[in-house]
Amino acid sequence: MKLYEKVAHAIEERIEQSFYQAGEKLPSIRALSLTHEVSISTAQEAYRLLEDQGWVESRPKSGFYVVNRQKAPQQLPDLSRPTQTPIEVSQWEEVLNLLCASTTADIVQLSRAIPDLEAPTLKPLMRIMSDLNKHGGGSILSYEDLRGADCLRLQIARLMVDSGCRLHPDDIITTAGCQEALSASLRAVTQQDDVVAVDSPSFYGSLQAIKALGLKALEIPTHPETGISIEALELAMEQWPVKAILITPTCNNPLGYTMPVEHKQRLLELTSRYDIPIIEDDIYGDLSYTSPRPPSIKSFDTEGRVLLCSSFSKSLAPGLRIGWVAPGRYVNQVMHMKYVVTASTPTLPQHGIAEFIAQGGYERHIRKMRAKYHQSRDVMIGWVEKYFPKGTKISYPQGGFLLWVELPTDIDTVELNQRTMKRGVSIAPGVLFSASGKYRNCMRLNFTDKPSEKNENAIKQVATCIQEMVSELT
Amino acid sequence: MKLYEKVAHAIEERIEQSFYQAGEKLPSIRALSLTHEVSISTAQEAYRLLEDQGWVESRPKSGFYVVNRQKAPQQLPDLSRPTQTPIEVSQWEEVLNLLCASTTADIVQLSRAIPDLEAPTLKPLMRIMSDLNKHGGGSILSYEDLRGADCLRLQIARLMVDSGCRLHPDDIITTAGCQEALSASLRAVTQQDDVVAVDSPSFYGSLQAIKALGLKALEIPTHPETGISIEALELAMEQWPVKAILITPTCNNPLGYTMPVEHKQRLLELTSRYDIPIIEDDIYGDLSYTSPRPPSIKSFDTEGRVLLCSSFSKSLAPGLRIGWVAPGRYVNQVMHMKYVVTASTPTLPQHGIAEFIAQGGYERHIRKMRAKYHQSRDVMIGWVEKYFPKGTKISYPQGGFLLWVELPTDIDTVELNQRTMKRGVSIAPGVLFSASGKYRNCMRLNFTDKPSEKNENAIKQVATCIQEMVSELT
Repeated sequence: MKLYEKVAHAIEERIEQSFYQAGEKLPSIRALSLTHEVSISTAQEAYRLLEDQGWVESRPKSGFYVVNRQKAPQQLPDLSRPTQTPIEVSQWEEVLNLLCASTTADIVQLSRAIPDLEAPTLKPLMRIMSDLNKHGGGSILSYEDLRGADCLRLQIARLMVDSGCRLHPDDIITTAGCQEALSASLRAVTQQDDVVAVDSPSFYGSLQAIKALGLKALEIPTHPETGISIEALELAMEQWPVKAILITPTCNNPLGYTMPVEHKQRLLELTSRYDIPIIEDDIYGDLSYTSPRPPSIKSFDTEGRVLLCSSFSKSLAPGLRIGWVAPGRYVNQVMHMKYVVTASTPTLPQHGIAEFIAQGGYERHIRKMRAKYHQSRDVMIGWVEKYFPKGTKISYPQGGFLLWVELPTDIDTVELNQRTMKRGVSIAPGVLFSASGKYRNCMRLNFTDKPSEKNENAIKQVATCIQEMVSELT
Repeated sequence: MKLYEKVAHAIEERIEQSFYQAGEKLPSIRALSLTHEVSISTAQEAYRLLEDQGWVESRPKSGFYVVNRQKAPQQLPDLSRPTQTPIEVSQWEEVLNLLCASTTADIVQLSRAIPDLEAPTLKPLMRIMSDLNKHGGGSILSYEDLRGADCLRLQIARLMVDSGCRLHPDDIITTAGCQEALSASLRAVTQQDDVVAVDSPSFYGSLQAIKALGLKALEIPTHPETGISIEALELAMEQWPVKAILITPTCNNPLGYTMPVEHKQRLLELTSRYDIPIIEDDIYGDLSYTSPRPPSIKSFDTEGRVLLCSSFSKSLAPGLRIGWVAPGRYVNQVMHMKYVVTASTPTLPQHGIAEFIAQGGYERHIRKMRAKYHQSRDVMIGWVEKYFPKGTKISYPQGGFLLWVELPTDIDTVELNQRTMKRGVSIAPGVLFSASGKYRNCMRLNFTDKPSEKNENAIKQVATCIQEMVSELT
């Protein structure tokens, strides 16, 4: 690390720790050079770096200020209007294209939801796992308990206190990522041809699970700030035989909203009235920008009707394939599905993660990632507002590292992605997030990486391709 | 290692390498003491240890001989006679009991099919994985390719040449153990309420997958030496709308047989005539006592109708959760199921295993394990013949580490297991291996461990409990 980077890093840490608040004036260049015992030009370079990274802004003739990060995008997407009829999910080909797209280093990946895997705060986890491999002996090679490793389930129960949940370790079953949690939950509460209500847009992995299990999706209008419309859901439930609700109410993928607490409670009351279960995907919950994180729907559930699904794939690393589910009253059905589908969860990473949490490494890592993604969000929104066509609507994520963008004109983002790929940038086309082929003019972009010239250029490339397609239309 | 153990080990190695053949006379005690430069009593102790472990036998006034390992049990089980009607599988409670049974160190586990995890030949694998954790960087933490790691699929394709299969790496999808391979295959080729024909007795994990996916099992009479009866299967297929066949034709679990090559071919012809797929569970195939291993049904398949399922859970270690499937013409359906159920297979162990195979570690380990299990089999058969009631029927495994035992009297092995557990021994009750509650007087025992006094005592304890139950009956 160069000297000016060290100085910038020190300021960054103080902003993260709220020592310097949003909008506050920062020390002058002279003061900075004195405090850190560096030259004036080094202090200048440090501020320039922080400006590039979106931490600070300079105001002419006044100095440097912490960026005010509460500024929402100029225009949010509208309430979504999906086809409100139960339908078979399609789009598998498009999802497959996304999953199998080239991942070479020369492509800027804005498409898949992969967290920061180069963070120094992950190193202790790797060391713990390395040691376990070396010294763990035969037990680390054997099947784990069907429910998962005791030590990990204990730590998950402790972590979930932040979300308002009082879970016993035996309420929890570990899984092969959140995906197994979701599909085992779906299978546990439905039969073939059943109707499942979902928020819309919705995570394509959930939609594909609905498809593969022979179920039908009923997409419900969803607000970009408050989530699934309870009113629309109630109307749909009067009209259709909904057997389960599958939603991501906290730091939603792809929209980024967190449902207000009252909405979460109203949703739970509604399902209680109709006696149906909620499958709550909480995978981004720990990456909420507020601390403590928002409560889960599960935290209000006294009837065991919520199947809370989560994973360490977004908070730590997806390649570990460690997720979990707290299935409430459906524990036996989920355990059966878990057994027949994967038999048990990999042993070593369960023990590794448990130890990492116990040592405080998880909390440290999450704190860093929250601050990082929060800051990246604002820079990313700024870029999209700057480079994309006027009238572009942008989500305002409250956690995680995903941005939803709706273009003002009717251009197809599947084709857009083909064009951007040729320029070395991948995006996730909006159509993946709908059962009925909606959102063709939308896209999801991740802002995992620290803002950099490379990423700003990637956004510029996408904007250029959009411009091309728009001018071809007219 | 003590001196006499070293000497015994040297002899053992030479028997493994067929330097000393079955039935051959071994050097005298005096000769042994001279060759190895040890005392007479050390040489005597070495032979005594080898005798205890079942490698050698002493013939009075003649000397020590390599045990003749071709001796089959006195009485094999009869051709099975299951209920030949499609039925819903039950027995989940019993399976759950087995899976959740205490695994403390003071219990001799003869119940679950766990391989030797303390083998020194596994150490290089652990070292490779330890290094990957330390130096692998971010890529080892990310999602792997949906099909699995290229490097591992290449190695699997190479290994499978021994089974007569010419697979391209892209024909292979890695999975969370063989269990995911089996359930994804089942789901890919069936719809709810479909009928699946199975060998009988049959692996309980397959039966439970049939149950959980809403399918019906049709159990087909099965011979303890040649496997599923082709004639009975043909009759059943004329009578019932069979949609798939799920069998373990090589080193069967629980019976241990390997279907003769002609039977494998005839089975394939039959399914070709009816145009239905075969799900071939080959998880124990590499642990066949013959070298090269027997051909798989897949090796004769020119129509892509066989879904070959396997795993490193029995050949290396189950806690890694790395299996694979070569789904033939069903590759798209299986890939979809794989995606919605686990999204991707853990990254690090895939790379670790690939490197282990590439370095020759896998072949070395398998060679050791084959010899070890082969030898344990004969000792185990000897003990069961010695201690169990007259008329007990015993399987004659051709690979793997599992023995099937049929008691002459009608005692319930679920109750037997409850009694043996109190004496610190677990067995797998036969009823788990049937959809229709057959095999109540049968049990499966593993012989993973090196023969020892502890294990001989465990068999004696089981025999004592049987005796108790028999005398209570009369």
